[in-house]
Amino acid sequence: MHSPLPIKAGQSILILGAGLVGSVLGISLARAGFKVHIIEKRPKPGQPGSAPNRSINLALSHRGWQTLNALGLDAAVGQIALPMRGRVVHPIDGPTQFFPYSADGQAIFSVSRGNLNKSLNEQALADPNISISYSTKTTNIDFERGTVKAQSEGKEVVFEADAILVAEGAFSVARQIFQVSDRFDFSQDYIPHAYQEFHLEAGEAATWRQQVDGLHIWPRKSFMMIALPNPDGSFTCTLFLAWDGDNDSFEALKDDKYRESFFRSNFPDFCALVPDFHTQFRQNPIASLATIRCGPWHHSRTLLIGDAAHAIVPFYGQGMNAGFEDVYYLMQLLPHAHTWEELFTRFFQQRKPMADAIAQLALDNFIEMRDRVADPDFQWQKKIDARLAQLMPDSWIPLYTMVSFSTIPYNVAYSRGKAQEAVVRAIMALPDAKSHWENEEWLLAGATQFSHLLEA
Amino acid sequence: MHSPLPIKAGQSILILGAGLVGSVLGISLARAGFKVHIIEKRPKPGQPGSAPNRSINLALSHRGWQTLNALGLDAAVGQIALPMRGRVVHPIDGPTQFFPYSADGQAIFSVSRGNLNKSLNEQALADPNISISYSTKTTNIDFERGTVKAQSEGKEVVFEADAILVAEGAFSVARQIFQVSDRFDFSQDYIPHAYQEFHLEAGEAATWRQQVDGLHIWPRKSFMMIALPNPDGSFTCTLFLAWDGDNDSFEALKDDKYRESFFRSNFPDFCALVPDFHTQFRQNPIASLATIRCGPWHHSRTLLIGDAAHAIVPFYGQGMNAGFEDVYYLMQLLPHAHTWEELFTRFFQQRKPMADAIAQLALDNFIEMRDRVADPDFQWQKKIDARLAQLMPDSWIPLYTMVSFSTIPYNVAYSRGKAQEAVVRAIMALPDAKSHWENEEWLLAGATQFSHLLEA
Repeated sequence: MHSPLPIKAGQSILILGAGLVGSVLGISLARAGFKVHIIEKRPKPGQPGSAPNRSINLALSHRGWQTLNALGLDAAVGQIALPMRGRVVHPIDGPTQFFPYSADGQAIFSVSRGNLNKSLNEQALADPNISISYSTKTTNIDFERGTVKAQSEGKEVVFEADAILVAEGAFSVARQIFQVSDRFDFSQDYIPHAYQEFHLEAGEAATWRQQVDGLHIWPRKSFMMIALPNPDGSFTCTLFLAWDGDNDSFEALKDDKYRESFFRSNFPDFCALVPDFHTQFRQNPIASLATIRCGPWHHSRTLLIGDAAHAIVPFYGQGMNAGFEDVYYLMQLLPHAHTWEELFTRFFQQRKPMADAIAQLALDNFIEMRDRVADPDFQWQKKIDARLAQLMPDSWIPLYTMVSFSTIPYNVAYSRGKAQEAVVRAIMALPDAKSHWENEEWLLAGATQFSHLLEA
Repeated sequence: MHSPLPIKAGQSILILGAGLVGSVLGISLARAGFKVHIIEKRPKPGQPGSAPNRSINLALSHRGWQTLNALGLDAAVGQIALPMRGRVVHPIDGPTQFFPYSADGQAIFSVSRGNLNKSLNEQALADPNISISYSTKTTNIDFERGTVKAQSEGKEVVFEADAILVAEGAFSVARQIFQVSDRFDFSQDYIPHAYQEFHLEAGEAATWRQQVDGLHIWPRKSFMMIALPNPDGSFTCTLFLAWDGDNDSFEALKDDKYRESFFRSNFPDFCALVPDFHTQFRQNPIASLATIRCGPWHHSRTLLIGDAAHAIVPFYGQGMNAGFEDVYYLMQLLPHAHTWEELFTRFFQQRKPMADAIAQLALDNFIEMRDRVADPDFQWQKKIDARLAQLMPDSWIPLYTMVSFSTIPYNVAYSRGKAQEAVVRAIMALPDAKSHWENEEWLLAGATQFSHLLEA
């Protein structure tokens, strides 16, 4: 047994992982008066092997910006981010439809993970109180001593710190050490779907060949394609499809003839824009998707944070935002905690229900994106939802707005969203709802009639 | 990619773990014509360090016996097993009550894990087609090549086999290698309770100082003590209690005064039989309890089996029985499979729903043992359940009987048990049920009235 270490300015902090969350965390803690060292398994950005060989483009939204704003990093990031103001839905035939994310034109922002990581690493290294060891892989942690063993260029190195923050991402090695310690709950759950990226080239003079200010979706019920814009005029497209199965699966796509007919029949406009899709299919990796839940996130003076603590599927675009929000919450709690253990315990208690909620929301949103978004009844439901938000702006906020354009805790957004959906569905089930819903008084009366559903 | 390996007599099988399941599996496969090698991290039984420093006494029941009978191992095991025909419930004051496990006196059998393991290892080593390397720890598996790396006396050893069976138990190292492979679902969930063993000494001339043919329970709602008899006249007692909390927790028991009053007030008869409980508390380890679920259990020619695939909490006494039943199912499937991959895939498909069901039953039974067993309404419910089984022997089998005294698949037992419980509760809610239930016709009419609940 050891006694908990009091928090004091000037103490040394070791961060495992110089990714998005590790960098922002390092900058935050250095500004708060700590000496920060970061170890990172990859080489320095720009050197070979520094970037992962694939990455879903990320969607930066309000929670992420909140953390960047607090550190004054928003201007630099703004230069590499492109606003997307709604969903651009591609039916199999006919024109695309645009569904704005909010009534007042709010946007989420497409940003490349690699560019963002490079920018944040540079900002971190500009701080004299931050240093980074690249190409340095965690091999073990001694929780009681506060030491981390790592491999660097074939040699073992030992780091010692007053607090250790693990921001290694979904496949964290340090979390495996938590996992073999006693009383650590853990789960990893894969979904049946995998993803593969396709590159849609820029048009002439770096212009975009389809609408730039939207997130493109080709919803096809059991699977979907999406596309996010890049500043160079290209789009990163991602196909989400089951691994296994005789039809509509990556397994089935191995067959050239099947693949030809699958792409031509499901994504005719995509095929016109990405004529080399067969070649890209053969070259690009196919990767799986999992949700990781665990707890407690802390062990004496070590804390798991970001994806290392709560990796989620990408369908709400909230993985990075949740990680950045972790940093925001941690820094809010810091001045009120006396010891690192107390800080980490409070952080876990506060953030765990929020992390569990966004994990579920992300799973639910896959079904919305690939299937429900194309359903006329669902579109009607969204219209009623949006109209109620206009009529009762103080008490009604659509779920997507709560998640992407507010800092309402994810778990509160989750339960309010469920309750609001129950009200809308009850209104839709009223006689002649289709002919009345655009009448303001009728709609408000309906909302009042079912307002008890919001109490639960 | 490799092509699946056809199953042929004479092939080499490597089993990881010479515990209960590993031994029985080895004997089964050697008799089926394979060359079996087993590696085991512990020293040979009888040598220092060979036995774990604690073990809940095990309860061998029908499913376990079925496997042992098929191998002719039942006679040897019968010599070290003691029958327990029901629960002996200890109230805080007043005499104990006996609740038989079945109407016809069927028993489960108390057996020490150490003794059983020694006996099964000896039986395995008596077979010329089985060899065992002790003090040999798995460090890595190459799934495609069918090789296992291990550490033995400081040296690395490599084993190669046509099929690899992982029977390493709940904390399997080999399963960690599955876990970092792609698309392996995994969870470990700890319950808030821990356990600690106490030794209740034999009386004069190796006689038992309390009823020998029962499983003793001191149910105290949020916690409990149990005791199982040993052949030498002693009992192994186990306290199940929350880790944390100001009261009724192992944390609180650290205080000598609190511990004195906790034991005296909750377990007065136990204190009389185990007067050195304070000393034992200070010396004996306290251990946690978890459920482990995962899948798929197979990766090319390697299979997880027993606790390595599905570790459960001990409250239904089914961990070992489920492991032995795994062996039975695997051997039943073996003659019908052409390749090891096909065998392992079918085994997983068949056993996974059963393993999930017994995991849940074991969690549920903790609440029954520590809390409901002392509730008069629950006792009445059990009486009605038993009576219906007597009146309708072809269609009604109490849940405990299905789990412990039959080979009905666990998942079938689970859903039938739930449905039967719904019928009994509906009968109990009928007007004047208390005054009528012993009337045979009234009871059968009630069962008929609610028989639709059995269809679901």
